[in-house]
Amino acid sequence: MRVNAYAAPAAGEPLAPTTIDRRAVGANDVLIEIEFAGICHSDIHTVNGDWGPQPFPVVPGHEIVGRVTEVGADVSRHSVGDRVGVGCMVNSCGECTNCRNGDEQYCVEGMVGTYAATDRDGTTTQGGYSTHVVVDADYVLSVPDGIDPAAAAPLLCAGITTYAPLRKWQAGPGKKVAVVGLGGLGHMAVKIAHALGAEVTVLSQSLKKQEDGLRLGADEYFATSDPGTFEALAGRFDLIVNTVSAKIDLDAYLGLLAVDGTLVNVGAPAEPLDVNVFSLIGGRRSFAGSMIGGIALTQEMLDFCAEHHIGAEVEVIKAEQVNEAYERVLASDVRYRFVIDASTLA
Amino acid sequence: MRVNAYAAPAAGEPLAPTTIDRRAVGANDVLIEIEFAGICHSDIHTVNGDWGPQPFPVVPGHEIVGRVTEVGADVSRHSVGDRVGVGCMVNSCGECTNCRNGDEQYCVEGMVGTYAATDRDGTTTQGGYSTHVVVDADYVLSVPDGIDPAAAAPLLCAGITTYAPLRKWQAGPGKKVAVVGLGGLGHMAVKIAHALGAEVTVLSQSLKKQEDGLRLGADEYFATSDPGTFEALAGRFDLIVNTVSAKIDLDAYLGLLAVDGTLVNVGAPAEPLDVNVFSLIGGRRSFAGSMIGGIALTQEMLDFCAEHHIGAEVEVIKAEQVNEAYERVLASDVRYRFVIDASTLA
Repeated sequence: MRVNAYAAPAAGEPLAPTTIDRRAVGANDVLIEIEFAGICHSDIHTVNGDWGPQPFPVVPGHEIVGRVTEVGADVSRHSVGDRVGVGCMVNSCGECTNCRNGDEQYCVEGMVGTYAATDRDGTTTQGGYSTHVVVDADYVLSVPDGIDPAAAAPLLCAGITTYAPLRKWQAGPGKKVAVVGLGGLGHMAVKIAHALGAEVTVLSQSLKKQEDGLRLGADEYFATSDPGTFEALAGRFDLIVNTVSAKIDLDAYLGLLAVDGTLVNVGAPAEPLDVNVFSLIGGRRSFAGSMIGGIALTQEMLDFCAEHHIGAEVEVIKAEQVNEAYERVLASDVRYRFVIDASTLA
Repeated sequence: MRVNAYAAPAAGEPLAPTTIDRRAVGANDVLIEIEFAGICHSDIHTVNGDWGPQPFPVVPGHEIVGRVTEVGADVSRHSVGDRVGVGCMVNSCGECTNCRNGDEQYCVEGMVGTYAATDRDGTTTQGGYSTHVVVDADYVLSVPDGIDPAAAAPLLCAGITTYAPLRKWQAGPGKKVAVVGLGGLGHMAVKIAHALGAEVTVLSQSLKKQEDGLRLGADEYFATSDPGTFEALAGRFDLIVNTVSAKIDLDAYLGLLAVDGTLVNVGAPAEPLDVNVFSLIGGRRSFAGSMIGGIALTQEMLDFCAEHHIGAEVEVIKAEQVNEAYERVLASDVRYRFVIDASTLA
């Protein structure tokens, strides 16, 4: 099946319209007519070659929402007409300890990324900046009614990336949670942590987005450019979710944790971070990392978001605006996620 | 009350016999006739000035076991004749969140160390290389029958330092625990993790102490000088307790953790460690630190050790051998803890 898409022809080149072939719908496959595809910073890193050589042309996009238009003979969990989503992975071995534990993203054979990855049949995956996609039904999520589909798309990456650590480290009533950075990931972390019942503080470089932060659910908002912030908040938080991938002064942030507190990174800077072990020992603190989440947890997150009427804050664009959108993402000029209207690709 | 002791007169000078004054027994105090005092590496760091200026002369020793010989009017938890212990702290504010949570070692006003610290009455504390000590009853532990008192002394520091993280990170049946380093701390970690029901692996520089390690309760023993160890054990452990304070290749050790695994340092190298955040994100792993444990947990540890007949492996020495013992500790020539027989100070 030949379908329209936007692809990067080579590293660092602008995306351009093209056509790609989707595989025939297999017994356990679902064919999805894509409605919306979010633009994640990872898309830009990948097509710019920041993360090494890629199998160009690359069609990015791993925040996909659409309607099921065909299902394979063995598919029972999705039906034609259902609204569904696809996130950062489309396959895994399904048999290793991690897959069996619902942590398919940590598949010991390696999860298959939604684009620029080699699928288990040897083909190269292509992402959501496209009109259609064929995905194994086990990696397709149900998008409940009650979330606007455009606002739902970023939940498939930004939503689960922040929901997973908030759940694991038990954000909830009585817990003080800080979110570092108020971007695509950060704004989802604020909404979800608030909905989970935690007391939420945003730690942002400046106070520029303070009004937004409070509107999205934060109880407090502090500028990290003000050294007084680190004194005022010393020992305060049970959990800090760091959504900033740049190098930070880790010891300063660890000092904001209460005893038994955890600072979890959901992004990784290219260079190693220095950590003074006394910062951890001095409060039985942890520095952790978390990467997206498994399929079952992603479904739980979507259901939670529908129940709490949570979607991303999105700016819907036409496919032809994608290169301009990339520039604006790099300039942090988006509140808070671009989403491509896939009907503009038809 | 003037009592005999061994003190370091100045930084880096050999310890020598002296006398010190102990305060009169207050209403909530306990006077202890010391039987044994363990030699902890911290004692050596302190008297050598590795940790900054100290209030010399310093009487080290925070692994103290003895008999109660007098109690203050308000003391109910200890009686004359009881065998008791004193660990790394002898006071704290008792009122802050951390003290109220039983984490007196993280008292926001600072715990009062057993020696070379300023007590809440302004006096300087002096440790266990002495015949007697007067300690607030709330910081005095009961040493149950069934542990040899010399073998019990190191439990007050090495025991609780390793018990605390093993309990917090739930070492037990079905859990795979690695202990890095088989010294004073490491040998306690092995014994306790084994008694908790975990599967225990020692990671040591060489196989020199392999026989000991297996005898103490380890199921497996690997040399970290062999690069094959890091391949063979990749993704294996739920918990790694790192008892080595030297700088390690953190990313290599993090690679040994399973998904959701934790590497916890109980010591801290003087220089910061580098951590590649991908090492954490790639398995939702944590790098943590832990420092001794609160009073209630220390009592729990002593009761646990008595129940499981666990003591330290000790070499009992006379007080006059302390300087020689320090040299042997620095040369890693002790299996596994020196304990001073305090009767040799009388």
